[in-house]
Amino acid sequence: MRVAVAGASGYAGGEVVRLLLSHPEFEIGTLTASRSVGSTLRDHHPHLFPLAERVLADTAPESFEGHDAVVLALPHGASAPLAAQLPADLVVIDCGADFRLTDQQAWAQYYDTPYAGAWSYGLPELPTADGGRLRAELIGQRRIAVPGCYPTGVSLALAPGLAAGLLEPSDIVVVAASGTSGAGKTLRSHLLASTVIGSMSPYGVGGSHRHVPEIEQNLARAAGRTATVSFTPVLAPMPRGIIATCTARLSSGVSSCELRSVWQDSYQNEPFIRLLPEGIWPSTGSVLGSNIVAMQLAYDDHAERVVVVAVEDNLTKGTAGAVVQCLNLAFGLPETTGLSTTGVAP
Amino acid sequence: MRVAVAGASGYAGGEVVRLLLSHPEFEIGTLTASRSVGSTLRDHHPHLFPLAERVLADTAPESFEGHDAVVLALPHGASAPLAAQLPADLVVIDCGADFRLTDQQAWAQYYDTPYAGAWSYGLPELPTADGGRLRAELIGQRRIAVPGCYPTGVSLALAPGLAAGLLEPSDIVVVAASGTSGAGKTLRSHLLASTVIGSMSPYGVGGSHRHVPEIEQNLARAAGRTATVSFTPVLAPMPRGIIATCTARLSSGVSSCELRSVWQDSYQNEPFIRLLPEGIWPSTGSVLGSNIVAMQLAYDDHAERVVVVAVEDNLTKGTAGAVVQCLNLAFGLPETTGLSTTGVAP
Amino acid sequence: MRVAVAGASGYAGGEVVRLLLSHPEFEIGTLTASRSVGSTLRDHHPHLFPLAERVLADTAPESFEGHDAVVLALPHGASAPLAAQLPADLVVIDCGADFRLTDQQAWAQYYDTPYAGAWSYGLPELPTADGGRLRAELIGQRRIAVPGCYPTGVSLALAPGLAAGLLEPSDIVVVAASGTSGAGKTLRSHLLASTVIGSMSPYGVGGSHRHVPEIEQNLARAAGRTATVSFTPVLAPMPRGIIATCTARLSSGVSSCELRSVWQDSYQNEPFIRLLPEGIWPSTGSVLGSNIVAMQLAYDDHAERVVVVAVEDNLTKGTAGAVVQCLNLAFGLPETTGLSTTGVAP
Amino acid sequence: MRVAVAGASGYAGGEVVRLLLSHPEFEIGTLTASRSVGSTLRDHHPHLFPLAERVLADTAPESFEGHDAVVLALPHGASAPLAAQLPADLVVIDCGADFRLTDQQAWAQYYDTPYAGAWSYGLPELPTADGGRLRAELIGQRRIAVPGCYPTGVSLALAPGLAAGLLEPSDIVVVAASGTSGAGKTLRSHLLASTVIGSMSPYGVGGSHRHVPEIEQNLARAAGRTATVSFTPVLAPMPRGIIATCTARLSSGVSSCELRSVWQDSYQNEPFIRLLPEGIWPSTGSVLGSNIVAMQLAYDDHAERVVVVAVEDNLTKGTAGAVVQCLNLAFGLPETTGLSTTGVAP
Repeated sequence: MRVAVAGASGYAGGEVVRLLLSHPEFEIGTLTASRSVGSTLRDHHPHLFPLAERVLADTAPESFEGHDAVVLALPHGASAPLAAQLPADLVVIDCGADFRLTDQQAWAQYYDTPYAGAWSYGLPELPTADGGRLRAELIGQRRIAVPGCYPTGVSLALAPGLAAGLLEPSDIVVVAASGTSGAGKTLRSHLLASTVIGSMSPYGVGGSHRHVPEIEQNLARAAGRTATVSFTPVLAPMPRGIIATCTARLSSGVSSCELRSVWQDSYQNEPFIRLLPEGIWPSTGSVLGSNIVAMQLAYDDHAERVVVVAVEDNLTKGTAGAVVQCLNLAFGLPETTGLSTTGVAP
Repeated sequence: MRVAVAGASGYAGGEVVRLLLSHPEFEIGTLTASRSVGSTLRDHHPHLFPLAERVLADTAPESFEGHDAVVLALPHGASAPLAAQLPADLVVIDCGADFRLTDQQAWAQYYDTPYAGAWSYGLPELPTADGGRLRAELIGQRRIAVPGCYPTGVSLALAPGLAAGLLEPSDIVVVAASGTSGAGKTLRSHLLASTVIGSMSPYGVGGSHRHVPEIEQNLARAAGRTATVSFTPVLAPMPRGIIATCTARLSSGVSSCELRSVWQDSYQNEPFIRLLPEGIWPSTGSVLGSNIVAMQLAYDDHAERVVVVAVEDNLTKGTAGAVVQCLNLAFGLPETTGLSTTGVAP
Repeated sequence: MRVAVAGASGYAGGEVVRLLLSHPEFEIGTLTASRSVGSTLRDHHPHLFPLAERVLADTAPESFEGHDAVVLALPHGASAPLAAQLPADLVVIDCGADFRLTDQQAWAQYYDTPYAGAWSYGLPELPTADGGRLRAELIGQRRIAVPGCYPTGVSLALAPGLAAGLLEPSDIVVVAASGTSGAGKTLRSHLLASTVIGSMSPYGVGGSHRHVPEIEQNLARAAGRTATVSFTPVLAPMPRGIIATCTARLSSGVSSCELRSVWQDSYQNEPFIRLLPEGIWPSTGSVLGSNIVAMQLAYDDHAERVVVVAVEDNLTKGTAGAVVQCLNLAFGLPETTGLSTTGVAP
Repeated sequence: MRVAVAGASGYAGGEVVRLLLSHPEFEIGTLTASRSVGSTLRDHHPHLFPLAERVLADTAPESFEGHDAVVLALPHGASAPLAAQLPADLVVIDCGADFRLTDQQAWAQYYDTPYAGAWSYGLPELPTADGGRLRAELIGQRRIAVPGCYPTGVSLALAPGLAAGLLEPSDIVVVAASGTSGAGKTLRSHLLASTVIGSMSPYGVGGSHRHVPEIEQNLARAAGRTATVSFTPVLAPMPRGIIATCTARLSSGVSSCELRSVWQDSYQNEPFIRLLPEGIWPSTGSVLGSNIVAMQLAYDDHAERVVVVAVEDNLTKGTAGAVVQCLNLAFGLPETTGLSTTGVAP
């Protein structure tokens, strides 16, 4: 199977290429860029030694002829017009936000470009209120929107409790810190090493971050009813990694004793999710480069809140790992093919 | 005035010495240690060049004779027995937790050593429910317990709204990340650079962190009634700095329009607190080495929560800066003497 | 083939396990420790999710029965006594220094334990003065000492020029910075994150670092005569990575025009060594987690020195990658089996 | 005395302002910028709280009327044309390279702009071959060029030995690592946090760095004859700090026993230079924010090279601290006024 990557010069595109390089079933086809057409992959990703000399082609529909799948790793708003020109039988996986939201109004509130509809949402492990998982509709699918990096960890952290009716979906508070690669490669002074090293700062506070409607959409799908989240993202001095601290109240009449077993039951067969043994809390460093989401939970009986902390690599499970996982599902391969469950540490 | 520092080999003690070195009114007296008696200050703090050759004396009452003040920068539980042997007319400032909690039960729940009572609490800026500030009782005071590093930022972030009755004190959620110096100098593998760089992890989740009762005590003092906090601390890959993301609900009948002016009014004359101009969010890097707490707030009308983010240097305003501020008050000096309002950045 | 790892709780041992986990031909056998017998792998390496529950056995000869190979990732001095008790037909790969030095006097000058002799030296790519490479004697070998992390990069950087007679071996200057994992997991205050982040410092200056005789042994093997190196290692604020800046004078009568082609010819068929295109300098970040040594060289016609800068991941190519490479050679597998030539970046 | 800062939006300008804020004798006058005219200081330096609202004026001669001194913190090449328009009785301190080189040919080789001549060189501590120091010509001086960041540490590290005839000036090798602030605030992808954190890379290799002629000029002034340096700078993952590893051969007939006392004698009365006690090596973290250069030396009798390692804060002693030191000298104030000899650590 030949897979092209549109937007291979960015961090997301580079990570897709990195993962495809060690995938036994996919051949890396055309790699494209927009402003960097004609440059080599080395210019953008010196770590991708095996393809260093690859020249980037133009991000145009004709570049993707002769491929079985195309991964779109483009700025938000750029996927929709391109996707409209791609043949229906091509597998298309979008890393951007263009096809994630099912609610046109939510789209209009956070994005300037026209609403393009929603594709199947590439978070296979998400438990839903009807007792199923999103995985079902991804197998053999030809259009998949992979989740944003924050929504992946936050949604998986809270979904089991919401799906089981244990958590109250109306008062959820999430504070999540992300490494700088989540902010992309655009040259902005707040992303300079001199500014970032040794410093943390919040952004998109007060509900203005574009991942809010996506998180709430996922949580509502798990809970079977509307979910409301106070979400504060924080920029952290590390290149990769997301740590999401998620808290919610117990539904009335629910005992905190049930908590652990619900999460355990929900994820025990999921190859990429690890509920750690009681009392052991996860670190972002432990999942670097892997497709793992690791989590732990506790009940604070004084504040009467459940706290779930989940970690992931924003570029791997948070983006490119999800791409490969969805490609595997789209092509009927074992879901774990070519994906690592081992972090690179220390 | 001659000031001794007990526990000068640790991070807190070292920062007290750093600040005293540039203080125009205090002379640095005896410096003590426990296991490191006889070593020089250079062995512990190579950055304190002017006192590199100073030999550390024993942490015993007789070491503090002939001083006007003693700063205790000792492990929790070690201050109380020592303080009991110090003369009543000596100014004693404690960096530890021993004399912070007014509630014996709260103490017993979090600490193993006997309850030693509470001293005046060294957070001068804290607004109280009666319209005053803690400053009043610190002037001329001879026993002062300076706040813990997390409680400083969290309490100052939320207090104006609580004191004004704008915030509901029963459902507060705080997630705060701290640099590694907050965890002290004890040799533990999770504090090794190899583990920490590029990684974040939570600890003391679910209400088990010792700063919870101290935070709630402060917030209750501001609100005039019991406050309950869900508090999750996170270790971040930087040596210094705390960023506290604090959220609370508005009290019923309150308009979010009032928020900004309440914080502004509360802190406009405070020399060490900066409410940034609307829309500008603080970074821990900007306050490094300074005695500043910088903050910003927003109202999330979707999630119906106020979000206040405060940053501080955990070693300066979070510990040693507070010590100097309290020493100034104890001796009737201008409160800002010898304290910097400029960060060291980038 | 079943491979045991002695000393699996340390950084080197952990990285060996990480690489073996993705190796198609080796099965991971017994993992051992000394002080941590009975603990699980998760306690030491939370990133090794697939083997998290593995219990560490004792580092004793009987633990290695039934294996085809044993990797010794032990403190210097601990390999020799253990190796003496292992059967001759077992493949034994040592990550320590015990069997690296061929000169008993050099050993005695730098180590306290008795000299144990020298094994085949596991740097397959090293060109030798006779026109060969060390690879030849590693194929089918049963006792191999893998190089130290610094010697790997430094030796490969300079060897082509020495083997070709272009470089003067008597006046070589090397300054190399290493990430903290190179210093191991021992709890020492200069390795704490608070000390290391934002700081660099030298150590082992003036020829006292134990890697000096090993580097000189390698360079002499390349040059065909004695080599002398001024070597200064520096601790850098990153978990992994070595950057070695190596300078030497041209031999008399040699033209700098020949330089590039000599390095190119030497390494063009080496799967793990990359001489970058002219003018592009390597970064340690680009080789993280890979088995690559990337390098670049320039001639400074003013100072009349050749400068070669080489980068590697100290834990991968600098230690555990070399182990796997040597295991592959020992068992007659393709040398690149199970080893990545792609870094994990950014 | 009123001091203006031209180019206050950059890192160097910001650090000058930071130091002037705590200087007892200087009042901060006009602050200027080029593209950022009309913005506030907060937009560029959120850590300079006391002057956050200051509006930046245009970098034009008329902005500096009514001042006693002007500090030029401008891009290389921009100081000369501006300085030509400033009155002769104004004290002008240049942070740029425009007036550092005495050799017009050296200038032409490294810079594109016309040669503007040389001002007094602002490295007061530099010992010269005639037994003096550069300090002499700085007192009361009205035009001073402060040194580049690398030349400061490298020159001070080697000068005592050269001035005393102990070191051979013809074969000096220096490898120096710098924090990212040394590269300035220009938005370039290799300075992004995602690229820099966890990575090191060289630049300007092979004698192409513009600091080479400046270093050689200083060393020649100390040695009394031509000096030749192989200089390799390396970018390190920290915001501030330079560590320079400098090696040279002993002059023939010289004993290594004399080394220590020569450095000691040279610097014992210098308030900003610290030769550490034998065996203790300096770290960049220890001098952060201070005006200190700390150093240590060793003789490697095997490689027959002296190794001197010096550390400094590139923005403080390497730039803005030198500015203040020179201002003090220019105005006849005590040289140490307003300058810290204490680092901010950890």
